[in-house]
Amino acid sequence: MISEVAAHGGVQGVYRHASAATRTDMVFSLFMPPQIERGEPLPVLWYLSGLTCTHANVTEKGEYRAACAEAGVIFIAPDTSPRGDDVPDDPEGLWDFGQGAGFYLDATQAPWDRHFNMATYVAEELPALVADHFPIDRGRQGICGHSMGGHGALTLALKRPGQYRSVSAFAPIVAPRQVPWGRKALHHYLGDDDAAWRAHDSIALIEDGARIDDLMIDIGEADPFLDKELRPELIEAACRDAGIPLELRRHANYDHSYYFISTFMADHVRWHAERLSR
Amino acid sequence: MISEVAAHGGVQGVYRHASAATRTDMVFSLFMPPQIERGEPLPVLWYLSGLTCTHANVTEKGEYRAACAEAGVIFIAPDTSPRGDDVPDDPEGLWDFGQGAGFYLDATQAPWDRHFNMATYVAEELPALVADHFPIDRGRQGICGHSMGGHGALTLALKRPGQYRSVSAFAPIVAPRQVPWGRKALHHYLGDDDAAWRAHDSIALIEDGARIDDLMIDIGEADPFLDKELRPELIEAACRDAGIPLELRRHANYDHSYYFISTFMADHVRWHAERLSR
Repeated sequence: MISEVAAHGGVQGVYRHASAATRTDMVFSLFMPPQIERGEPLPVLWYLSGLTCTHANVTEKGEYRAACAEAGVIFIAPDTSPRGDDVPDDPEGLWDFGQGAGFYLDATQAPWDRHFNMATYVAEELPALVADHFPIDRGRQGICGHSMGGHGALTLALKRPGQYRSVSAFAPIVAPRQVPWGRKALHHYLGDDDAAWRAHDSIALIEDGARIDDLMIDIGEADPFLDKELRPELIEAACRDAGIPLELRRHANYDHSYYFISTFMADHVRWHAERLSR
Repeated sequence: MISEVAAHGGVQGVYRHASAATRTDMVFSLFMPPQIERGEPLPVLWYLSGLTCTHANVTEKGEYRAACAEAGVIFIAPDTSPRGDDVPDDPEGLWDFGQGAGFYLDATQAPWDRHFNMATYVAEELPALVADHFPIDRGRQGICGHSMGGHGALTLALKRPGQYRSVSAFAPIVAPRQVPWGRKALHHYLGDDDAAWRAHDSIALIEDGARIDDLMIDIGEADPFLDKELRPELIEAACRDAGIPLELRRHANYDHSYYFISTFMADHVRWHAERLSR
């Protein structure tokens, strides 16, 4: 336990643990709502952050606690990658790959494959660890994320039918095979094998038959990454073709920041809470 | 204009200007709620931050925008002191005095008196400047603050009858004459003249006849500064003796952080909005 602080009737915690998946220490935050006092397991909403972020960005700026306290939902924010002096980083020295940019997949290529196993970490190791220490209901998990984390939420939900009962995203990367951030990451982590790439691309996964029950996505029309990196029209077409109900909300003037995320966070928490209570 | 970003239906701005009062550039944040579109002046809530903070802490972590957007209140967060290489700083090299710790008064002692004129800045210069650029209703101003900023809110309201129609505070320093943070600041800024100190101490001001209509204060019972620096029992006694209605809320388990502030921020915004709409 790094810290536990009273907030919105519950407790905002930050925790560190040794991870087998990433072979590093990992830090995550967890908000426990006041409903914990009823003594029953509670549903969980996983939040996956975007490039450069740690657990701290959404924990400080996400404005999720009031809505989670009202709905009785545990909110967990993992880190976005392994970190440390022994962990390889972007060979170009940029911020869009390597540490802070794990893309929520298990790397197959050296030197990345030793530590960058964020799919196994987020979808298997961390839920099991959390379940050992907190009263989470593993049958009621939802997942959401922002940008690279939206990609993570979508691909993990598409690849693991039944694990997540609700999925949503803020400004997600939906087609990493087709955009610069994604192509750079997939090239390094997976090598240049299109079959491997398709297994980590929401559009390709849907084309190849993966399904989720429904999906809510918020997009800011003033997001500087909209046309080059996010391309929401691709998920719109894929969901339409696949018959996946999509609520795609385009918000005039909003950008890619936590001012955008925090504005619509309560809507996402309620959207998940409704599905997790069915 | 440093930045203007869409948030909660309005615009969160950050602005820089040259200040005559502090003889430095100063930065503040201002949230304009969506009601601006009605074309009428709106009430203002001033928020004064605590030791070490800039405008940014509450702007990022304060969770005030949803409540201000609902109530139609402009929210302005000034910096806590002048800053810059030419501005003197704590001779002990600590964080509780000097830059980041202006205590919302006009210093009378060298070298502090050249730049540290935060009372004039916050209560006169900045409201006039803001009124030139934004549609604020100067007849409907409320003021709140945290810790050192709670001291600022209380003393400015007590010293300027009629300027602020509502006052509240989170974990305020109420008796700087009697506590270490306050005594250090008053010694340097004002010299060792108890008459000057009394004019910047909420308890002394009330004892000497200053009044406000009513007051709401939130305190966390796990606040590490409660007994040594904050001493809410002193304001409780002063308000009782003076007949000032005080709603003092003591919250078990809460600390001094923005997790505490953000939990109760919406209550404060609504409390001010109610008084500013009368």
